[in-house]
Amino acid sequence: MVRPDRLWRNARLATMTGDGLGVVEGGAVAATDGRIVYAGPADDAPTDAAEVKDCDGRWITPGLVDCHTHLVYAGNRATEFEQRLEGASYEEIARAGGGIVATMQAVRAADEAALIAESLPRLDALIAEGATTIEIKSGYGLSLDAELKLLRAAKALGGRRPVRIATTFLGAHAVPPGIDADAYIDAVCGTMIPAIADAGLADAVDAFCERVGFTPAQTERVFKAAAAHGLPVKLHAEQLSNSHGAALAACYGALSADHLEHLDAAGIAAMAKTGTAAVLLPGAFYFMRDTQVPPIRGLREAGVGIALATDCNPGTSPLTSLLLAMNMGATLFRLTVAECLAGVTREAAKALGLGGEIGTLEAGKSCDLAIWDIETPAELVYRIGFNPLHQRIWRGQ
Amino acid sequence: MVRPDRLWRNARLATMTGDGLGVVEGGAVAATDGRIVYAGPADDAPTDAAEVKDCDGRWITPGLVDCHTHLVYAGNRATEFEQRLEGASYEEIARAGGGIVATMQAVRAADEAALIAESLPRLDALIAEGATTIEIKSGYGLSLDAELKLLRAAKALGGRRPVRIATTFLGAHAVPPGIDADAYIDAVCGTMIPAIADAGLADAVDAFCERVGFTPAQTERVFKAAAAHGLPVKLHAEQLSNSHGAALAACYGALSADHLEHLDAAGIAAMAKTGTAAVLLPGAFYFMRDTQVPPIRGLREAGVGIALATDCNPGTSPLTSLLLAMNMGATLFRLTVAECLAGVTREAAKALGLGGEIGTLEAGKSCDLAIWDIETPAELVYRIGFNPLHQRIWRGQ
Ligand SMILES: [Zn+2]
Ligand SMILES: [Zn+2]
Repeated sequence: MVRPDRLWRNARLATMTGDGLGVVEGGAVAATDGRIVYAGPADDAPTDAAEVKDCDGRWITPGLVDCHTHLVYAGNRATEFEQRLEGASYEEIARAGGGIVATMQAVRAADEAALIAESLPRLDALIAEGATTIEIKSGYGLSLDAELKLLRAAKALGGRRPVRIATTFLGAHAVPPGIDADAYIDAVCGTMIPAIADAGLADAVDAFCERVGFTPAQTERVFKAAAAHGLPVKLHAEQLSNSHGAALAACYGALSADHLEHLDAAGIAAMAKTGTAAVLLPGAFYFMRDTQVPPIRGLREAGVGIALATDCNPGTSPLTSLLLAMNMGATLFRLTVAECLAGVTREAAKALGLGGEIGTLEAGKSCDLAIWDIETPAELVYRIGFNPLHQRIWRGQ
Repeated sequence: MVRPDRLWRNARLATMTGDGLGVVEGGAVAATDGRIVYAGPADDAPTDAAEVKDCDGRWITPGLVDCHTHLVYAGNRATEFEQRLEGASYEEIARAGGGIVATMQAVRAADEAALIAESLPRLDALIAEGATTIEIKSGYGLSLDAELKLLRAAKALGGRRPVRIATTFLGAHAVPPGIDADAYIDAVCGTMIPAIADAGLADAVDAFCERVGFTPAQTERVFKAAAAHGLPVKLHAEQLSNSHGAALAACYGALSADHLEHLDAAGIAAMAKTGTAAVLLPGAFYFMRDTQVPPIRGLREAGVGIALATDCNPGTSPLTSLLLAMNMGATLFRLTVAECLAGVTREAAKALGLGGEIGTLEAGKSCDLAIWDIETPAELVYRIGFNPLHQRIWRGQ
């Protein structure tokens, strides 16, 4: 082993390796050039590190991973929220120019610098709780230029803060005004996906398959175009109804199917077969006052990996806290503490196709750590509105 | 008007005076000796302040008031939460020494310094979101010595941070092991209340009136003892069932009745008549997955003041965020934005009997301010897990 740059000693580790928390009491982590070279019992740790940090018995987990966000957008929809509480319906708000169209117009009107400036506080909120990797979807531009701008802004955020950004092209988020859905999907598949793939701006392609979104047939066209350009796919599926989108996504080897409140047994089986991750989004469930809980037991019994994410977006989940996403996953979905923690580390990494790179404390992975002032990992899930992060390390720094 | 020490100009005010937000665009606040001497349009503000702060168009609200917490305790019940998610029942946990008895034992074993040290991070979380007044109840000691220790620790927190602490004696929180309920109430009324009143350690007296707590008759004994010692009362009422506790509390001129999920029309009418505030605790509702929403419309129509609080406690609401309490009040109880903001300012102040002192931006009140990086007050309620506090001012500093 080369001489480590840094060693964190006197720590308790939740390595998140294996199926559970992978607890190591009296542990240490060593890193060289931003990569973990050792994570395990202190007794076997390298002794020649250039720099040694005493963790005073604190817990170390992998840096947190938010694997589903729509974090880059412009405009503010707090006023719509206010109007809904005063009795306005979604239809009334949409007629008054609100909803996703309001965000689309604000995004189209903003330049890249403005998008970055508006999104940084949201990114900073996630980072302040130990997030080291964040997925960001486009999908509020709904034209080639505006989608490119969103993806460039998302990538640029990674230059502004010490964080890994994974980008996802979600052109098939909604049909923009003035065009029909099939014609828009023509543009998504024929123009947008090729241009975005050429520019190297997306790590994956996503779509919104729903009665109020795109049909399975339209979704399949998006998946085929993504495959033709070598991009993996994901899907917003089974949130409001069962469109059998998760099974379709699994057919295309999707990294994940997300939401899944109305997922059925066939969908679970299809996901299990292809190793497609289930990304659960309890923030949207909470904010929309949904009552249909995703089929947790079925996912668990089938061995489908369960990730948790914020779904940070202005319309249905204005959530910028993975700690709260965990609490909601436990409180509202009855996930266990180990499932919640795996959901924002190991399983979230897999849902991004980054399982070999991040998500656990293991030699060879990026040295992304969250160091916590807690007595037990359960505290990270149990407390509501409390941030016990002591320090966050990204790529060894 | 004397020359102000300080003037905050170029601000937008939510004064919270009157019934709504009391918005003043282009506003200013001036303070002398820690008290507001002016809050209103900048044009009429004093011009001779010793120090002028430019707020760059930010919003100023009154400092937030958390009017119902059990913030001072020892021990950690995250592990119980973990066990419940793994299927353990409340009964199994209680048999294994968990539940409130676990907290009672940890509190009895801790000295005052340890109680302060364990509670400070929770206090700091509230303060970081702009809280300037926090109510803290005893009720985990359940013996004279331990209750005195809790109240002393609560008061001592006010010396450690720039914050006003209001203390409430909640000896009648639970029956400690080894004594029967009536005998315990004898001690509460005959020994504890007199000693605590003599020591000046409590601003109010509270009780837990519930099938699993104390009967209305036992509660009434507590109220009579409090009245005999000149202390106002409050009550945990109608959380799990309708014991008609709110009406009883109103009979005794209670400052507030709290929880109220099962409150009936007679209870609402009684509260309206005596001006008893309704303190709603959506954190406990959320955490316990309650489905019975308090009768918001009835409270609103009867003109009962509605406050919102965290109920911060280790068993049923490990919540340390008033911003989240507001979001839950809106999302889960459908309170309006104006009701949520009033609930953590003006109405919370009234629920503590401090309506003349704090809770609005008005000349004569304590200069407790929260200055926010927001475009509209609705953002404070709408966002989930995001803290836009720019600065917090307590007593003019
Ligand atoms: Zn989404
Ligand atoms: Zn309480």
